[in-house]
Amino acid sequence: MKKRYLIAPGPTPVPIEVLSEGIIDIPHHRSEEFVQFAGEVFEKLKYLFQTKNKVFTFASSGTGAMESAVSNLLSPGDKAIVLVSGKFGERWNEICQAFNVETVVLESEWGDTVPLERIEKAIDENPDAKVLLTTHSETSTGTVIDLKAIGEMTKDKDIVLVTDAISSLLAQELRMDEWNIDVVVSASQKGVMLPPGLGFITMNEKAWNLVENSSSPRYYFDLRTYAKKYPESPYTPAINLIFQLKKAVEMIEEEGIEKIWERHRILADAVRAGVRSLKLELLSKKPGNVCTAVKVPNGVDGLEFVRRLRRKYGVTVAGGQGKLKGKIFRIAHLGYMGSFDVIIALSSVEMCLKEMGYDVDLGVSVKTAEEIFLKEGVV
Amino acid sequence: MKKRYLIAPGPTPVPIEVLSEGIIDIPHHRSEEFVQFAGEVFEKLKYLFQTKNKVFTFASSGTGAMESAVSNLLSPGDKAIVLVSGKFGERWNEICQAFNVETVVLESEWGDTVPLERIEKAIDENPDAKVLLTTHSETSTGTVIDLKAIGEMTKDKDIVLVTDAISSLLAQELRMDEWNIDVVVSASQKGVMLPPGLGFITMNEKAWNLVENSSSPRYYFDLRTYAKKYPESPYTPAINLIFQLKKAVEMIEEEGIEKIWERHRILADAVRAGVRSLKLELLSKKPGNVCTAVKVPNGVDGLEFVRRLRRKYGVTVAGGQGKLKGKIFRIAHLGYMGSFDVIIALSSVEMCLKEMGYDVDLGVSVKTAEEIFLKEGVV
Repeated sequence: MKKRYLIAPGPTPVPIEVLSEGIIDIPHHRSEEFVQFAGEVFEKLKYLFQTKNKVFTFASSGTGAMESAVSNLLSPGDKAIVLVSGKFGERWNEICQAFNVETVVLESEWGDTVPLERIEKAIDENPDAKVLLTTHSETSTGTVIDLKAIGEMTKDKDIVLVTDAISSLLAQELRMDEWNIDVVVSASQKGVMLPPGLGFITMNEKAWNLVENSSSPRYYFDLRTYAKKYPESPYTPAINLIFQLKKAVEMIEEEGIEKIWERHRILADAVRAGVRSLKLELLSKKPGNVCTAVKVPNGVDGLEFVRRLRRKYGVTVAGGQGKLKGKIFRIAHLGYMGSFDVIIALSSVEMCLKEMGYDVDLGVSVKTAEEIFLKEGVV
Repeated sequence: MKKRYLIAPGPTPVPIEVLSEGIIDIPHHRSEEFVQFAGEVFEKLKYLFQTKNKVFTFASSGTGAMESAVSNLLSPGDKAIVLVSGKFGERWNEICQAFNVETVVLESEWGDTVPLERIEKAIDENPDAKVLLTTHSETSTGTVIDLKAIGEMTKDKDIVLVTDAISSLLAQELRMDEWNIDVVVSASQKGVMLPPGLGFITMNEKAWNLVENSSSPRYYFDLRTYAKKYPESPYTPAINLIFQLKKAVEMIEEEGIEKIWERHRILADAVRAGVRSLKLELLSKKPGNVCTAVKVPNGVDGLEFVRRLRRKYGVTVAGGQGKLKGKIFRIAHLGYMGSFDVIIALSSVEMCLKEMGYDVDLGVSVKTAEEIFLKEGVV
């Protein structure tokens, strides 16, 4: 017997009250009752995105929702500006390439963000660019961009601002309408506290004009079909997940979105302070509240560290991706998590580093986190 | 949202793999398939008790199984010797009184045990006493008796040794046959990692002779009926719990009973050392591996402490019962628990005591526990 703790930035733990809602006598998705039920659930999604726009739900992962953004907004030969500061920025670029969209790639160091002025300059220099593709929370580095400032800058420009909020939704403040974000995509297995399997996309009128004119080949993710049928799904929806979604959204409504953002902020603060008290270094220059990327200290084998945490301690954190493989580990504070998930993460990291030869004062990061919880609130 | 941690000595956490086995199309309990299935599950229970005797399963709580011991072994006017060192020793006495059984009560201070010599003396002085009623783990004080020594002492005497192993089963070494324990009762919601609802009783030939001769009024718990029908249940069994029991017993077999005892020993050691490092005092003079009873320090309101742990921290420990109400709190290390349950318990106790004015070095008990886990094993 070994208890398992999922402390990775997705999939994240699912409350048993949510899981158990998937135990149903499956209704037919064309039945009037189900379509009405799903419509009520989808309506509630607007709160999560802080938008008045319809939110479309796919039976897909988050990448499916990203593809739907590209294929619905852009045509072959169109130009997009892409911010790339990690693996998920790269993914936007890869999808554009697959759909023959020309990209202007604005790169930064992994762990940093592209400065606002560089983005504005690129937009001004590329008046034919139709879309700006951004990653709200770059999960591979634990970094967030200043999406509000970008929205403020693009709102009067002739460019559609798209953000991948797959890992940031509910963990990081995001006010789609107020911040003038034109398109937001997300997924179920992160802050929404669901199993994987649902992708979300929502867009405003400014973006919708592009959808009508896109000539990219698309079928499953063609938003025109979803809009026409809404709230009915054109193809078989993930019925059980939609029942679970109802419960998750009710839990989210009950806690309240500002409180949820604040909970994630406190958890992230505790992890950052705890990790620093172990004399470890954060990777990110602009760390967000989704996950904390920590540099593996000298003398410790990063791959073995993550493996040992999982096998011996039962604690799954994420390792590094792409060029960061073996160089960082990532502690999530995302979704159905509270103070004691932070305590477990820090305690296991302390013990595992110690046994791998790193000089650790056992208990010190837990103490640091406890001090923050006593000051800011046990969440 | 507040994650909840059940760190009380029953009910204990149930693994989701066990819970999910209750989601079944309920078979009829008289069907050949179900009777065979239940028989196979009941057969596996022998391993938990380390016995070759049949284990009978009631749809009842543990108290039901205790009543079945008394009503099946004793007749009105019969005499029993009862060890009373806490609330559950008292319960044996109360059940005897309800069935008009005369009792010789051997009491000790709560937190201590009745010395072996006193027990032997009482047996010798009361040659008409048919049964010795014991509590293997006195959950109200976190104390264990030396059951092996008692069995060694009673094996050649004309008295039937009964033990309440409701909280001790799997947490504390217990070898029914090897130790000459004549009757063992237990229940599902503790070490067995099941929801509440099943009571167990098992007895050897020596005890069974009393069953045949008892004239106590009994029906639901009449073991003669269960023995005749076995493995079929005379009355409707808790079908879904028996499906869950199968999974739980398989998990127990897979881990191995010696390893399970050892896991509980390590968890208990870590809690005891952690609590002491906070300069708190244990109640028990013979603390066991089921739960640790800790004296509430001067100046702290014990009832408010337990309430605040639950409400603010989401951590449910047990308070004191009976004469210990408000004076102790009890941290369980029982059933589906591992190292990080101990870390959560200690971390929450540290923070809660600190905010209630007790002088705590935050992190110190977590550090103490971590040291034990690094030395003895992360479990």
